[in-house]
Amino acid sequence: MAKPLRLNAFTMATPDHLSPGLWRHPRSDAARYHRRSYWTDLAKILERGLFDGLFIADTLGVSDVFKGGRDTALADGLHVPINDPLLAISAMAEVTEHLGFGVTVSMTYEHPFQLARRMSTLDHLTDGRMGWNMVTSSLDSASRAFGRSAQLPHDARYDMADEYAALCYKLWEGSWSDRAVINDTETGRYVDPTQVRTIHHDGPHFKLDAMHLCEPSPQRTPVLYQAGASPRGRRFGAENAECIFIGAPSKPVLGKFVRAARDSIRAAGRDPHEVLIFAEHTVILGKTDAEAAAKEAEYRRYCSDESALALMSGWIGTDLSRYKLDDPFHHVDSNAIRTAVEAMSSAAPDRVWTIREIAAWCGIGGLSPVTTGSPERVADSLIAWAEETDIDGFNLAHAVTHESFSDIADLLVPELQRRGVYKQAYAPGTLRQKLFGQGDRLAAHHPAARYRWPTS
Amino acid sequence: MAKPLRLNAFTMATPDHLSPGLWRHPRSDAARYHRRSYWTDLAKILERGLFDGLFIADTLGVSDVFKGGRDTALADGLHVPINDPLLAISAMAEVTEHLGFGVTVSMTYEHPFQLARRMSTLDHLTDGRMGWNMVTSSLDSASRAFGRSAQLPHDARYDMADEYAALCYKLWEGSWSDRAVINDTETGRYVDPTQVRTIHHDGPHFKLDAMHLCEPSPQRTPVLYQAGASPRGRRFGAENAECIFIGAPSKPVLGKFVRAARDSIRAAGRDPHEVLIFAEHTVILGKTDAEAAAKEAEYRRYCSDESALALMSGWIGTDLSRYKLDDPFHHVDSNAIRTAVEAMSSAAPDRVWTIREIAAWCGIGGLSPVTTGSPERVADSLIAWAEETDIDGFNLAHAVTHESFSDIADLLVPELQRRGVYKQAYAPGTLRQKLFGQGDRLAAHHPAARYRWPTS
Repeated sequence: MAKPLRLNAFTMATPDHLSPGLWRHPRSDAARYHRRSYWTDLAKILERGLFDGLFIADTLGVSDVFKGGRDTALADGLHVPINDPLLAISAMAEVTEHLGFGVTVSMTYEHPFQLARRMSTLDHLTDGRMGWNMVTSSLDSASRAFGRSAQLPHDARYDMADEYAALCYKLWEGSWSDRAVINDTETGRYVDPTQVRTIHHDGPHFKLDAMHLCEPSPQRTPVLYQAGASPRGRRFGAENAECIFIGAPSKPVLGKFVRAARDSIRAAGRDPHEVLIFAEHTVILGKTDAEAAAKEAEYRRYCSDESALALMSGWIGTDLSRYKLDDPFHHVDSNAIRTAVEAMSSAAPDRVWTIREIAAWCGIGGLSPVTTGSPERVADSLIAWAEETDIDGFNLAHAVTHESFSDIADLLVPELQRRGVYKQAYAPGTLRQKLFGQGDRLAAHHPAARYRWPTS
Repeated sequence: MAKPLRLNAFTMATPDHLSPGLWRHPRSDAARYHRRSYWTDLAKILERGLFDGLFIADTLGVSDVFKGGRDTALADGLHVPINDPLLAISAMAEVTEHLGFGVTVSMTYEHPFQLARRMSTLDHLTDGRMGWNMVTSSLDSASRAFGRSAQLPHDARYDMADEYAALCYKLWEGSWSDRAVINDTETGRYVDPTQVRTIHHDGPHFKLDAMHLCEPSPQRTPVLYQAGASPRGRRFGAENAECIFIGAPSKPVLGKFVRAARDSIRAAGRDPHEVLIFAEHTVILGKTDAEAAAKEAEYRRYCSDESALALMSGWIGTDLSRYKLDDPFHHVDSNAIRTAVEAMSSAAPDRVWTIREIAAWCGIGGLSPVTTGSPERVADSLIAWAEETDIDGFNLAHAVTHESFSDIADLLVPELQRRGVYKQAYAPGTLRQKLFGQGDRLAAHHPAARYRWPTS
């Protein structure tokens, strides 16, 4: 049997995530992103499709590279307006039983004492279904929002992240022993105070002198996700992450990134395959190939080149509005762009891409690949991607939400099940237990485990 | 007809809120405080009782005055462990339609840019049912948790709060015009960028240079609650609050506080009765007076003197463990205690209270009054409190949760309805519309309104 595939859904609490302009498709739910029913409807669709989790991206800044300002992003609802991703989780937990929730929360703008309490609270409220995507923030616009004049340099941000993560681990794993909560109505003791430790921390970036405010939640530390692609970010992920997200436009590039990630995990002293790697991907499904192709063509009528270039400009830090649509992409004088072009060109090595074609590429699913076809064709394709690149599953973005996800649940998942590469039902237990089958808690060799109380 | 009464429920995401020890009562739900069903069960009970809102207190510190440490608080689950109060709101919104949510969020430890997004997100997710209890933090233990060596002095905290509130108002009321979100699928414009302003703020406590990340929510600014009792806190409340909470153990003391609050509101240039004042109160109900008295006696068997003194010690900043239980309370050398004794003594002016009696007083409902009896007797009492002290309603704490609240919904509310002092059904609309009947938005003369876009 082929390797079992895992599916995450990838979204953001904003009208336009990775398919710029498609919020205005007549069947799109995207303009309801701020309503509770948007999230509960989505959660029910994903649980019907046995998705492992819903992964919610976030940003605290506004992309303002394209045309030197925020207007294109605002006009298209491209990552702005954007709501807090943590606050709809308990409503989604109320209408589901198994779906996990992986949420991006930046380590740059919130003290770890607060973040630790928020995550523990949600792990309680979801019965152990929480995950945290550990990111550091890079947008200058976010930095200014908090009254800071500039970001830390990239590598210094990850040094800060090391300390931030360690502090969270101390609170989650080290403050309360497993025997702390006794809930003894006879003696009237809810907690045994000897089993609760104050954490004393005095580091270069953070100081803290407190016990964790929350009693141990089902998973204690939420499932740890990470997506950094730089060497320093990859090292952080290799040391901390249980799941890694990778975006790459072609199999060769993805395969290279996956090998680099597995190598980093090995270098960190871990089994390279104990970390699950999810690749960003977008699928467009129809009952037949022809129906799917017609659906893609119809979707593409709603794409916005302007917004796609704004999205790309924000990613690469270069204002693509300074070029003509028919300019060849590699003439753009930017290292970041050259890297992106190199990656994309590997999908079609002999081709010279124009700015217009780049906009079209980013029109659905951003830089990640789009696979269009019947359930049989898409299943063939995803299985091939997984086999050839050594990934564990996909982080599936939407073209048109929620339709993309209900198509996956109703068309693709049954086909993957027929192939024997997809679960027939959820495993019981917490998100971590579902993903790894080895209990609710972080593995004993994870760096967080060193902060645990000795077991007796 | 007597003045209509409004009811709020008062709780905290912790085992023991204001009735120390009662978490261990056999019918108590308190030890489930961390479960989602605890909150959804509570919300459904309160909506059955047509409560205006659920008010959730919070703290980021641990009371460590009693016996010079945290052990008594921990052992009893007294305000620790304590979960984040914002995260169960969307689950409660999912199972109710009208109930409002007033949540304590400190202005001391979170940047207003973050708080503003969290509140706007919840106002969206609840369809306009959010309220914010504006507090500044006073516990040294919370300050240490965030690596700070000391709190700002009391009045300086309120100067900071003035700036914090103004910054939130600028984001909520001033960043997006009413015409900003156009959601025009024809032109592909979700937002009209000319209708979104960047807020530039450079004050003594906060700097910010950003637009608000959220599109306007139903109420924009959440309903503003405040509970400060000091002269400076009262001034802040008089200038900003739409609802004020007051705790006082007797009618004369409550009446004095209410007059001081109304005077402050008048001094701030507002109609003293445009602000709703809620008094903290606990009721114990039975079908008959005898049944209620028996219920109270049974409850009191689970009270903890030790925890009650820990609660009181934290409030007054004096370690009451240094005194014998039969010491007279007024011999304790503390201004704060003398004030508390003065307040309590007004309920029984000629009495000398012992430490033991103080513990018993605080055993149910903290320092607030307890009324026990049949629905008829409790209704008589609450109506008399309201008439004699000029309050608008009650913030009802629980003795035993959720039983206290279901007794109110099922026994007291029908009696108040029979008296014509309680609504027969919820009014439609947002929390603000339900409370004041004058629309979803803050009044035009509220200080926040000065930041609004001009209407055309």
